[in-house]
Amino acid sequence: MRNVQIIIEYDGSAYCGWQRQINGISIQQKLEEALESIVGEKTTVIGAGRTDAGVHALRQSANFFTKVQIPAEKFPFALNSALPQDIRVVCAIERNGDFHSRFRAKRKTYLYRIYNRRVASPFYLNRAYHYAAEINLAAMQQGSKSLMGVHDFTAMSAAGSQTKSFEREIYDLTVQKTGDVIDMEVTGNGFLYNMVRILAGTLFYCGIGKITPEDIPSILKKKDRTLAGPTLPAEGLYLKEIFY
Amino acid sequence: MRNVQIIIEYDGSAYCGWQRQINGISIQQKLEEALESIVGEKTTVIGAGRTDAGVHALRQSANFFTKVQIPAEKFPFALNSALPQDIRVVCAIERNGDFHSRFRAKRKTYLYRIYNRRVASPFYLNRAYHYAAEINLAAMQQGSKSLMGVHDFTAMSAAGSQTKSFEREIYDLTVQKTGDVIDMEVTGNGFLYNMVRILAGTLFYCGIGKITPEDIPSILKKKDRTLAGPTLPAEGLYLKEIFY
Repeated sequence: MRNVQIIIEYDGSAYCGWQRQINGISIQQKLEEALESIVGEKTTVIGAGRTDAGVHALRQSANFFTKVQIPAEKFPFALNSALPQDIRVVCAIERNGDFHSRFRAKRKTYLYRIYNRRVASPFYLNRAYHYAAEINLAAMQQGSKSLMGVHDFTAMSAAGSQTKSFEREIYDLTVQKTGDVIDMEVTGNGFLYNMVRILAGTLFYCGIGKITPEDIPSILKKKDRTLAGPTLPAEGLYLKEIFY
Repeated sequence: MRNVQIIIEYDGSAYCGWQRQINGISIQQKLEEALESIVGEKTTVIGAGRTDAGVHALRQSANFFTKVQIPAEKFPFALNSALPQDIRVVCAIERNGDFHSRFRAKRKTYLYRIYNRRVASPFYLNRAYHYAAEINLAAMQQGSKSLMGVHDFTAMSAAGSQTKSFEREIYDLTVQKTGDVIDMEVTGNGFLYNMVRILAGTLFYCGIGKITPEDIPSILKKKDRTLAGPTLPAEGLYLKEIFY
């Protein structure tokens, strides 16, 4: 069996998320349907990041096994012909049999985007979290420093997360503003459920003065979800890159 | 009567253009309906640039006359509450009675955007012209130089343009690439019908080697539309700014 990795870009606005669900159309379903129309049989597409409803991807990574002898570089065009325009396969790469897009992922980068202007923009509709009032960028940047490194992120994960350990390492976390857009970019060895949206919400709360950057170490230490910032909306979140 | 100028941002994908039409919903109609719901009577909204179907605006300018004593700065919020989310009034300014958004415009800036990657992007769907093969940016930049200044643009206007003179002045024309996006930005004292899309098409033809940058002066001189490049699709065009 061949093992083919694909890199996928999608606008998640119209979907119930990456993973197949009974109620709603998922990215995975659309990809598996497109793949079946090409290879002629049901084929599971394994995704690296199981993005939620409304979450976007700039470079989602996935893989599938197939017996069909189509050269890897032909897959993007063939799949794109069968996919809706809001999901695009950017490239395909032949991998060894033991490659697994999720289990082999060493690092992931997510982007959280806030559109910060009094009036929302038609061009960021469903693609950023709109916030009308002023945001203190320096406070967000200050807060981000305390989140870098190895921490127990219980305080910044959704209640009921099923995981052995709440410890994760954040390698890099930047906050920058370009025009009216504030981008928070975070790279880590893994993320708990809703963790990026809660990290973003906590830095956002620093930016609007609801907490101070100095509060963050004690929020982490107390492991109390209610002390951290809100889970910001899915529409601002982008899975940006998977590293192996 | 008060004279109120408004600055409007819109994604034109869903509309038949700026101007009211019998078949199709226009930006003007949506604005006039929103305005009527606030001031209580039918009020004409005069737009500076009559953008075509599918064309976007970053800062369209318009004005209307009203007797209603709502402070100018209250109009954006009031209008936005009544408008669809793909049309936003960014600000409103009190003007003298003789201000006319179209007739008083001295300069206009348009942006034409090409998305240049083998695979189209979900995030530029309806918001850029997608071209998959290579484009020679230097050739486009070279070609742009011959378009600057005062010229008869007959060769670069749609057949049947109704105008006294085909002479226009281009003050500035830049071509630059950021990531996969090529932006052509042009500022002039006015533009003939379809002129920006044909200018963009002519520079695009320089970029893909269908004409050379050196051909442009003679294309202008011969006043023959068939020698210039194609009218690129509406979806890549943005009205960027109106200057008074």
